[in-house]
Order: sequence, then C-alpha cells, then structure tokens
Amino acid sequence: MYHVNGELVPPEEATVSVDDRGFRYGDAAFETLRAYGGEVFAWNRHVTRLERTCETLGMPEAVPDDLALRVAETLEANGFDDAYVRISVTRGVQPGKLTPRKTVDPTVVIYARPLSRGGTSSGSVWSKPAVLQSVKTRRTPNAALPVDAKTHNYLNGILARLELRRASTDQYRPDEALMRDIDGFVAEGATSNVFFVDGGVLKTPAEGSILPGITRELVIEFADDEGLPVEEGRYTLDDVRHADEAFLTNTTWEIRPVASVDGIDVGSGPMTALLRRLYDEAVERQCYESVF
Amino acid sequence: MYHVNGELVPPEEATVSVDDRGFRYGDAAFETLRAYGGEVFAWNRHVTRLERTCETLGMPEAVPDDLALRVAETLEANGFDDAYVRISVTRGVQPGKLTPRKTVDPTVVIYARPLSRGGTSSGSVWSKPAVLQSVKTRRTPNAALPVDAKTHNYLNGILARLELRRASTDQYRPDEALMRDIDGFVAEGATSNVFFVDGGVLKTPAEGSILPGITRELVIEFADDEGLPVEEGRYTLDDVRHADEAFLTNTTWEIRPVASVDGIDVGSGPMTALLRRLYDEAVERQCYESVF
Repeated sequence: MYHVNGELVPPEEATVSVDDRGFRYGDAAFETLRAYGGEVFAWNRHVTRLERTCETLGMPEAVPDDLALRVAETLEANGFDDAYVRISVTRGVQPGKLTPRKTVDPTVVIYARPLSRGGTSSGSVWSKPAVLQSVKTRRTPNAALPVDAKTHNYLNGILARLELRRASTDQYRPDEALMRDIDGFVAEGATSNVFFVDGGVLKTPAEGSILPGITRELVIEFADDEGLPVEEGRYTLDDVRHADEAFLTNTTWEIRPVASVDGIDVGSGPMTALLRRLYDEAVERQCYESVF
Repeated sequence: MYHVNGELVPPEEATVSVDDRGFRYGDAAFETLRAYGGEVFAWNRHVTRLERTCETLGMPEAVPDDLALRVAETLEANGFDDAYVRISVTRGVQPGKLTPRKTVDPTVVIYARPLSRGGTSSGSVWSKPAVLQSVKTRRTPNAALPVDAKTHNYLNGILARLELRRASTDQYRPDEALMRDIDGFVAEGATSNVFFVDGGVLKTPAEGSILPGITRELVIEFADDEGLPVEEGRYTLDDVRHADEAFLTNTTWEIRPVASVDGIDVGSGPMTALLRRLYDEAVERQCYESVF
C-alpha cells in the first residue's frame, strides 16, 4: 500500500497527474528514512531537512502537519517493522507553465518497502563493501541548485551511475560513483557521503558541495563524542585512493565500507568498525529499547 | 485528451505511477513543439533533439517509432490546428533504485493545448515584450548535466523564476530570468535563448553553457541567409543591458522582444523586426502553404 495525498491506496492506484509539477519538472522535495522495530530513526532531523528543502523551493508550508501519522499508517497498513520509507512532497498541479504560483496544493506520496537492518542483530542491507569508481560527471554546484536541497532532480547522480555501467567488465563491477565538485575536489557518491581515514584522522568533504547527509551528521557526532579527530575539508581523488580506511554513509546503507577506489584497494579498519558499532548502538537505543 | 503510452485518455486518467522514474527522479526527456495549421513546425529538428537527449540519458531506443502518429492523433482528438504540444519520454518504471536498468519500457506522454500563433495572421502569444531580470541562480554547467539535453530536471530554471517573484513590486514585474553560467557570462533565460544587437551585429551566447534552442538555430540560419553579421560568443550582463536591441527565442514565444534588462530599457528595432518577419514567413511556408 502507498500513501498518496492522505489516502492509503494499492500500487496500481498510486499515481500522479502528468500535469503534476513533480512529474513535469522534478519540482519536489523528498526524504528517505528507515524504520527499525516500527520506529522511524532520526525522524526530527529528516523532517527538518524536508522542510528546509521545501523552503528552498519556495513552498515553505508544503509539508503536511500530520506527516508522522501518514508514515505510521503506511508502515502499519503494510505490516512493516523494519523498512525503507520514502516521502515525496511536490508542488502539485498548477495552472500555467514553469513559473510557480504562490498557492500550493502539494502532492504527498509515502512509499515503504521491507528492509531488515544490518547492525547487531542481522546481516547488512548491502551484500558487500562498495567498489567505488570516480566519474567525469561533476556534482551540480550550489550556485545552480542549492546542494542541501534533496529534490526529485536526480539526473546528476543517474548520469554518474550510468558511467559505472560503461566502466564495468566481467571482473570489475563498481557500484557507487565517486563525484567531484566543479573545482575537481572530492564531493560525494551518487547517493552517499564519503569518509576516509588518513593517519588516524577521520576526514570527509566539507559542506558546500555535498548533500549534508543525516547519517554523515550522526557519524561526525559519534566521532566527536568518542574523542576521535575529525576533519572536514577539501580533498583530491588521490587522498581517498590512498586512505587507510574508507566508508560511505546514507540512510539505507548506514555505514558501508569501501573495498576499493578506482581499482585501488582501500578497505575497512578499526575506525570504521568502531563507528559502525556506535551507529548500531544508537539505532538500538532509539528504536529498539522499548522492545526489550 | 492526453496521449499516454499509446492511448488517448481524458485528463483525469492521464497519470503515471509514483514509481515512474520520470516522477521519482525527473529521469525523462521532453520537447515542446508548435503546430500551425495542423502541421508541426520543425518536426525533424525536435525529434532529433529528443533522440539525442534520450541517448545522453542512456536510453537511445526510448523514442517510439510512431511518435509522429501519436502527435497527430492527439491534435486530431482535440480538434486543434494551432497548438502547443509537449512530448515527454521517461525511463518508465524499473525495479531497484537509482541505477538505471538497460532494458527500458518508456512512458510516453503527449499533451496539447490550443495556442493561436502570432506572426502574419494574428496577435502574439506573449502579451508584451519581455521584462528581463538577471538572477543569482547560475545555469547548471555542462559538467554536471549535459546542457544540450532537454530533461525533466527543471528546478534550475524554477529557482531562477522564483527569484523574479522576490524582485517584483507593483511597478516592476520581470517575467523572464537572465541566467549566467558558472563563470559569470550570460547564458540564457529560464526557458529561452537570448539575442542582442550591438553595432549592427547580432550576438548570442555560444553553445557550451546553453540549451541550443531550435528557434535559436533557425534565427541564426535566417540571419546567415540574409547576410546579417552573427557572432556567437561570451558576453557580460552589461553587454546585454547596453545593447541596441534584444530579444528572446523559444518555440512558444518564437521571437519575443526584450523591453528592459535589470530595469534598463533595451527594446526592439529593425534587426528584431526583420528576423520576426523571416520567422513568420518560414512558418507560413512550412505549415500553411498547402492551405492557400
């Protein structure tokens, strides 16, 4: 069951008008979230980002007040405890063409799929560490589309992933694209943030040319709390290729080690293992505690 | 009536799945065309560009062979002779998430609205010359998303238009955004190409940071045929602000004079008038000749 504009509907009825601006122009905000044990993880952070994206798109009032209820209804109707959840908020159907009207009747779509978690209690959602390949497609710069907005304009990442198809052979199957910013510095993966360890310091590209991921934010907080040295800066591809450890973060993958970058082995290590444990514990604390 | 995946349907049935990649990611190509006297103008050029966009998106076979027939059916079912037509080709519904599958079952949507033409026989489709306002939002660079691809990722132009809303007062109502490229040179409008006249030379930003519009291409050809000096180059906002004449081009507007740029009067003149006449004659020749 999908949740479309306030109603639970079966998949075949989960549609939008071809005049919806979300379809016409990708004129929409979205979030991906995870539910663990029936509880959505880091809910407030995701809602805050969704509201910020809507504000960037000039529709600050578009997020419905009962969003949490709609998500809960979606999970319940499907009987999902551990799930992947996607929320989309579009500018809806409006008269006229490109220029948006001030009055917005948003289209709100919630979609969920079962997704058992990795962590302390089961296997990972990813089957193995990431094979990371740098690509030519550069991350869309902030001046063209604010990088902290999570929108339906996702062709930049799709083009990056298409480059992986062309780079693949029977022996080599990269599964995440490493994108640089317009100045040539490492930005992020097509759907993930990048971390690496160099001389005992945890490093990650600074905000400004990346989507500031919520998992990224949590990892930095956990590292700070643990007293691990963290540096946010500008890095080259060589910095990542020759790191001691590297991993990717996003809501779905949580913390996913990197096996190699451009064919050069990088791999996991103690810093990655520690952060994964801290992340797992946070999930247990927030979402499963009441169960035990 | 809309034409959706090979069938004529009423507006309320003109929908796509929320799982369609056109909705999820703006993962789609589109074209806007005009029909005059029942004939689509510059059809081959539009289809060529649509195919090129689909190729850029890694779905070279997505444009259906019977596209011309579908457009004709749409015009006929609605009884439109003079019309605006939009064609969208999306990557359709696919399993998995961001990484596209090779096998594509595209979603093809055709939409038409009556639009009487300007030109020699009636008034203009635009009510008055454009009031052009430069904006901070920079044109998405080629390195992030190939500029010659016409896609459903249109937030860049929407953000530019939203800046006009903020710049508007009761006395001043800009209606097209003048965007610069990432290096600060004039690129294009949110939905139009820009031309200006300086010392008897027709000037327009060179390809590389603009969508190479079909109306733009025709205007350059008409000017060449007429022996008018044409220069494609890199220009500053001041070059356009202090031009002798300026106009915008797109399929809908055809050639639309610019009244002012950033509040500075520019206006029309003999070069604009001549090119409008040449464009009108081309439309008559191609689309209305058989009628007379």
